[in-house]
Amino acid sequence: MTSERELTARLRAFFPQRADVRVGVGDDAAVVGARASHVALCCDPVIEGVHFLPETPLELVGRKAVNRNLSDLAATGADADWLLVSVVVPRSWQAAQLMRLLRGVRSAALAAGAVVVGGDLAVADAPLVVTVTAAGNVRGRALLRSDLRVGDTLHVTGPLGGSIDGHHLKFRPHVCEGRWLAAQRAVGGATDVSDGLALDLATMLEASGVPGAELDAAALPVRAAARRLAKGDRDGALQRALHDGEDHVLLFSVRRGAALSRGGPLTARARRPIGRVVAEPGLRLRRAGALEDLDRRGFEHEVGR
Amino acid sequence: MTSERELTARLRAFFPQRADVRVGVGDDAAVVGARASHVALCCDPVIEGVHFLPETPLELVGRKAVNRNLSDLAATGADADWLLVSVVVPRSWQAAQLMRLLRGVRSAALAAGAVVVGGDLAVADAPLVVTVTAAGNVRGRALLRSDLRVGDTLHVTGPLGGSIDGHHLKFRPHVCEGRWLAAQRAVGGATDVSDGLALDLATMLEASGVPGAELDAAALPVRAAARRLAKGDRDGALQRALHDGEDHVLLFSVRRGAALSRGGPLTARARRPIGRVVAEPGLRLRRAGALEDLDRRGFEHEVGR
Repeated sequence: MTSERELTARLRAFFPQRADVRVGVGDDAAVVGARASHVALCCDPVIEGVHFLPETPLELVGRKAVNRNLSDLAATGADADWLLVSVVVPRSWQAAQLMRLLRGVRSAALAAGAVVVGGDLAVADAPLVVTVTAAGNVRGRALLRSDLRVGDTLHVTGPLGGSIDGHHLKFRPHVCEGRWLAAQRAVGGATDVSDGLALDLATMLEASGVPGAELDAAALPVRAAARRLAKGDRDGALQRALHDGEDHVLLFSVRRGAALSRGGPLTARARRPIGRVVAEPGLRLRRAGALEDLDRRGFEHEVGR
Repeated sequence: MTSERELTARLRAFFPQRADVRVGVGDDAAVVGARASHVALCCDPVIEGVHFLPETPLELVGRKAVNRNLSDLAATGADADWLLVSVVVPRSWQAAQLMRLLRGVRSAALAAGAVVVGGDLAVADAPLVVTVTAAGNVRGRALLRSDLRVGDTLHVTGPLGGSIDGHHLKFRPHVCEGRWLAAQRAVGGATDVSDGLALDLATMLEASGVPGAELDAAALPVRAAARRLAKGDRDGALQRALHDGEDHVLLFSVRRGAALSRGGPLTARARRPIGRVVAEPGLRLRRAGALEDLDRRGFEHEVGR
């Protein structure tokens, strides 16, 4: 058996620290030096049977646990700085399994330039739950999901749909894109597409207090996996782009008449609108010249009444 | 059924915000304004079957989930400012159960002057897991568990043992005490007593790279519940004070020859030493004039090899 204290000692060496970390892994709390006056904070779990399967490689589970949170930070335009990792470890586990999980955590942190500064390990008769907290400096303004205005064009930083093909485990969080967008005066609101484009857009409309939006079917970037999963059915692939979850691209708006500056990390595709915010209530899809109502279904947790 | 989005909208009103919260509940990430140059961060879960029983009132579960983390912040000397709450909700739950849990979270936050700024709800076939992240400004220095020196006297901010009697659900985190201690030049190291005095002290010795410590049996403040649970057996009560977990008082040291200033939140009892850091290796208990070796057992999670 390996005790929590032995593991903590091992993890202090396992997770590299850096100069802005005054107190890292192994004390009651981490202490970090904030460079900006504002700090972004978010916290999302990944749970066996909900966000991954029992057979999912543990490195990928660790990676997803980190990147889901970095994608939320990205949608705020924050830097990806510090991570806390809390693991509910199934009682049957061996230390080697835990280390595989934590290798995934470490590689995702390194890829984004973030550092693991603390967390907790607790053994329980429960499925694996990995709850990562991500925190980062907000250097300029924060991007908000409540900042859409009628007339804004809508954009996404990457293709949509079919994430179940493996993307949901292996995506790269769009931290650079988010930081760049936050520095653009032309940009309005932004969010991370995690529950499906239609549902996340509906949430933005509601948060912004604006009536509706139109999406252009022909302009939606459909991930190759969505087409593959739809077996060549174009409508099937489109539905996946609209409603599949866990794309983890950024959905953002650009003010009417304003322009994004040149350069930066956006693809040419991300600069082309996929739709616009309109004064007519509801969510609609423009396809072959006609407008149809768009179902806002997507992934939502439900709690009984 | 109540959707995640309906709940989030309800929770925005449920958790009061304050001026230093730029973005609170309901966006991709929270954004808070740091007053100090350093921020303390910690994250600990409470899990059904490990930290509470299926029959534990949910208000108390929510309260414990918050206070466990505030006690860790307290041990760093940080303010209790911002909380994220991530809940793995059992699939069988009704919305009323979730709200009972969150009322406990809210009341603990209010009691400490902290605000809930975000989090996540995920429904799963799993026992209840509540993972709270706590963050706070560090105004002066941070208290470290690695800051003991030979010659320091040892102190605790409250009585020890018998927390299973209910204290582990209802304790008040010693945030004021921690903040005051951080401002005292006489104070050395500090930690939160969560796994039992002997084990947490052994961890401090190791982290500080000092050889050993002696505790005085007659000086240990024993909680009345520990005496009750020991049914009048004095040694039984002492063993509980030394090894029971979840006391959530602060264990701190005072430098040799230095004195704590008058006033402040410490009790007279907390100002009297319970022992000292010594040059002889190991942990010992002084009882009836004799020194005996002290077992460092306490609560530790174990992961198989």
